[in-house]
Amino acid sequence: MSDSSARFSPSRREVLRGIGLVAGCAAMYRAMTALGVTRESKYSGPVDLSGAPRGASVLILGAGLAGMTAAYELRNAGYRVQVLEYNARPGGRNWTLRGGDTYTELGGERQHCEFDKGLYINPGPWRIPYHHENLLHYCRELGVALEPFVQVNYNAYMHNPEAFGGKPQRYRAVKADYQGTVAELLAKVTTQGALDRDLTHEDREKLLESLRSWGYLDQKFAYVRGDASSASRGWEKDPGGGLRGKPVPSQPFTSKQLLDSRLWQLLFLPDQYEFQTTLFQPVGGMGHIGEAFGRELGGLIRYNAKVTRIAQDEHGVTAYYEDTTHAGATRQARADWCLCTIPLSILGQIPMNVGSAMADAIAAVPYAASVKIGLQFKRRFWEEDEHIFGGVTYTDSPIFTISYPSTDFFSRGKGVLLGAYNWGASAFQFTAMSPAQRVREALRWGSQIHPQYEKEFENGIAVAWHRVPWTMGCFGEWSDELRARHYDSLCRIDGRVALAGEHASYLPAWQEGAITSALDAIGRLHQRAVAGAKS
Amino acid sequence: MSDSSARFSPSRREVLRGIGLVAGCAAMYRAMTALGVTRESKYSGPVDLSGAPRGASVLILGAGLAGMTAAYELRNAGYRVQVLEYNARPGGRNWTLRGGDTYTELGGERQHCEFDKGLYINPGPWRIPYHHENLLHYCRELGVALEPFVQVNYNAYMHNPEAFGGKPQRYRAVKADYQGTVAELLAKVTTQGALDRDLTHEDREKLLESLRSWGYLDQKFAYVRGDASSASRGWEKDPGGGLRGKPVPSQPFTSKQLLDSRLWQLLFLPDQYEFQTTLFQPVGGMGHIGEAFGRELGGLIRYNAKVTRIAQDEHGVTAYYEDTTHAGATRQARADWCLCTIPLSILGQIPMNVGSAMADAIAAVPYAASVKIGLQFKRRFWEEDEHIFGGVTYTDSPIFTISYPSTDFFSRGKGVLLGAYNWGASAFQFTAMSPAQRVREALRWGSQIHPQYEKEFENGIAVAWHRVPWTMGCFGEWSDELRARHYDSLCRIDGRVALAGEHASYLPAWQEGAITSALDAIGRLHQRAVAGAKS
Repeated sequence: MSDSSARFSPSRREVLRGIGLVAGCAAMYRAMTALGVTRESKYSGPVDLSGAPRGASVLILGAGLAGMTAAYELRNAGYRVQVLEYNARPGGRNWTLRGGDTYTELGGERQHCEFDKGLYINPGPWRIPYHHENLLHYCRELGVALEPFVQVNYNAYMHNPEAFGGKPQRYRAVKADYQGTVAELLAKVTTQGALDRDLTHEDREKLLESLRSWGYLDQKFAYVRGDASSASRGWEKDPGGGLRGKPVPSQPFTSKQLLDSRLWQLLFLPDQYEFQTTLFQPVGGMGHIGEAFGRELGGLIRYNAKVTRIAQDEHGVTAYYEDTTHAGATRQARADWCLCTIPLSILGQIPMNVGSAMADAIAAVPYAASVKIGLQFKRRFWEEDEHIFGGVTYTDSPIFTISYPSTDFFSRGKGVLLGAYNWGASAFQFTAMSPAQRVREALRWGSQIHPQYEKEFENGIAVAWHRVPWTMGCFGEWSDELRARHYDSLCRIDGRVALAGEHASYLPAWQEGAITSALDAIGRLHQRAVAGAKS
Repeated sequence: MSDSSARFSPSRREVLRGIGLVAGCAAMYRAMTALGVTRESKYSGPVDLSGAPRGASVLILGAGLAGMTAAYELRNAGYRVQVLEYNARPGGRNWTLRGGDTYTELGGERQHCEFDKGLYINPGPWRIPYHHENLLHYCRELGVALEPFVQVNYNAYMHNPEAFGGKPQRYRAVKADYQGTVAELLAKVTTQGALDRDLTHEDREKLLESLRSWGYLDQKFAYVRGDASSASRGWEKDPGGGLRGKPVPSQPFTSKQLLDSRLWQLLFLPDQYEFQTTLFQPVGGMGHIGEAFGRELGGLIRYNAKVTRIAQDEHGVTAYYEDTTHAGATRQARADWCLCTIPLSILGQIPMNVGSAMADAIAAVPYAASVKIGLQFKRRFWEEDEHIFGGVTYTDSPIFTISYPSTDFFSRGKGVLLGAYNWGASAFQFTAMSPAQRVREALRWGSQIHPQYEKEFENGIAVAWHRVPWTMGCFGEWSDELRARHYDSLCRIDGRVALAGEHASYLPAWQEGAITSALDAIGRLHQRAVAGAKS
């Protein structure tokens, strides 16, 4: 009877299994605590925190995904945990704007989200790659329901206002024509002998066969109008039934048109590891993850707490903060250790006695600009008129992106598009505008692609990340040079303070970066705490 | 007040709108009939059937999607309609096998589906491309809920027992390496001058830039181990957070390995028009479409009716049939016109007095062999162990295909894989086996890809289409030559008989082919009926 699970009576195990199946492991953990069984088990989370020193405490700054992951695991491992959060809600950049929400940006502009019930945008992260395993682990653990997120849609558009007379083109046509052109060119030079020194005769034959199949070339290795090319790029008239069923092939672009359009600049995106199938999103908005963490942590999080100073000494760390709902008095929180997840753009403005290596790193990393705009329309015209179900249209215009909802397909009701998601210079331009101007600009540019905008638009909301009071930017924008010089200094524990967040990761802007940075940091904090307790 | 909708009182319109939103148009049609409002409206379906002659009748043979589409539209247009169906259920090849179902194939082998509640396989069609607009139209009309079907999964496998020591490779790696190899080769010969006569200098520069980006080449236009290639093929160690977050690039295959593997033979599939995002499937099984049509048509369908002879004369068409639940007496059904959707493989054995052109066409078309096998496992190991969420693994072994469910992602319960979907010689081999042998073979070959099979398998079911009593084959397999000689003769109305079904379309095997062939055929039958009534 050494296996601790054997100590559970069958009925008790059944109860726990039942709870676990329905509500996820977090609920099971609570139930186990209530039944008094966890004290016998060892900690078994995604990082080894076993043997936490009795009474050891950690102060966590920021209730985003990094901070709440740390709080969850440290609490489960037996640490005393306290979290200070600037906002009145958990999640940080894990955030969903729904009808009825209000949001006030730097400069005082206050927006009221007028979306209908059930409609939303995620101003921050909005998709979860299948290989972001830690994030997916917590979704399961916390019972956050997931659904597929459609990133790549062959029937969505690629658009360059300067190409094809400004007419958007279907992704399937651009992709097929680019690959067909590449295959045709390579087949041609191969038969002309240009690869004779690179490949054996047998390999050249295989290459040619592969190019014909993969490139949708005809029997003569040509990419031309016909059944072969239309089987990928789509038809002028689709195949159908009966006497009128014969398909009519479509006309490919010339290689000249294609190269001039510069639409090929975006063709790499669908093959990028982060955008590969199958991606997911929480049903009802990304914010459900932060909300679930917040419910799980309950009273451990103190909201509306604006940290104004962080002071460590040889015994612990004190954070000074203001309660933003009761201006005036400064309060304090203290613990043996501190995990600080405040974005560097904010943290750089908060006095903190750390060494120059960490301080320099904090000051070194610029924050990327980005703007996201949600637009509500009276009907889902992209589905009804254009047969676009989810996915992303890319445009060379200042809005960069139009994304179609990956949920409620075929519903006859209203819908919200992500009407702009830009960065760089375009994002700074949009940041300088008022929210209403941003929405107008998104409508103006978007209507080049979807002329239905004008008639169907109802309301919009625009988040410019450099005006978000608690981040003043979208994410830490590392260059290779900056990373070589500062990254390790940013991540190394300084006395009793460790940093975490997407900025302390090789996955900037991704929630998985925030979570894995937190797991890495608390693992190292734990080792120090154990070593300190033993010494 | 000439607009007929203005005749509805507001409250009545509200009632109708409410019904339409929740239950689809079919329910609204029934409600409108009950409220007595449809008699004033004209027919407005996807084919022009307005002005049906009073009392005109159509006999429809087969309650698959072709037959039921025709019955639905003809009934709505005012025709008297009767459908004869061999099976005890509607749908034909639109068919879902669920736990508790039984199925008896030619030869008498009877299988009992032992899947757990909620699990299923679709032995026939299993996915709906976004451009199959008529099929999607009926799903909306009949209130069939749809969800995304994941066809392409970058993390699923490509497998050739003879390549890479039999080890399956991730699709993302094979795809990235093939494209990288193609891009590298074309970039090389371009810089060597091989395209100087084909492209201008400016276009060659654009081509090179595009190859570097699209092909994930490094700065020197090489496809080698490094950050560039791993950003598409995936990493040896994924990027993460903190001090241990640095990614480790993975090693691409050599062009020799890649070409020898012949895995490139399948790389065209994800770009095929029918497999492009976004595809759909009915929630709970494809059979829900046939079931919804069946509910809608109700008593118009006579089940268990085995047609034994079709006889037309100058006034109408008589079908002779046996009630398979009461052997013995032959019954008759008669109407002015007949739409016959019986598969050609069966129809060729039924006496019917049509001209030699149609008769020859019926006899000419062979039917494709195919076998599908569903396997239930104790847990969804493909998700838990291998992070494969939906999509298809392709193998050169006799099972061809392993497909992972596109629903219930992350559930901790059991799961059903499509453990084989083959055609051609492999399908004939599997058809010759007993159902139990087929399942064993699927397990044997599949365990080369998923060694978990052995431990986790629970039960399976196998449908070999050449042994399905009511089709004796999977779908009409047209060659270009056969189509040139026989297709129009098959589709042309012969006297008072028209044919429809996927076999009478340019979309063989697809439900959209069946539906569009039916719409085309009833449009022409209607014209004849109208012309006959006027003469």
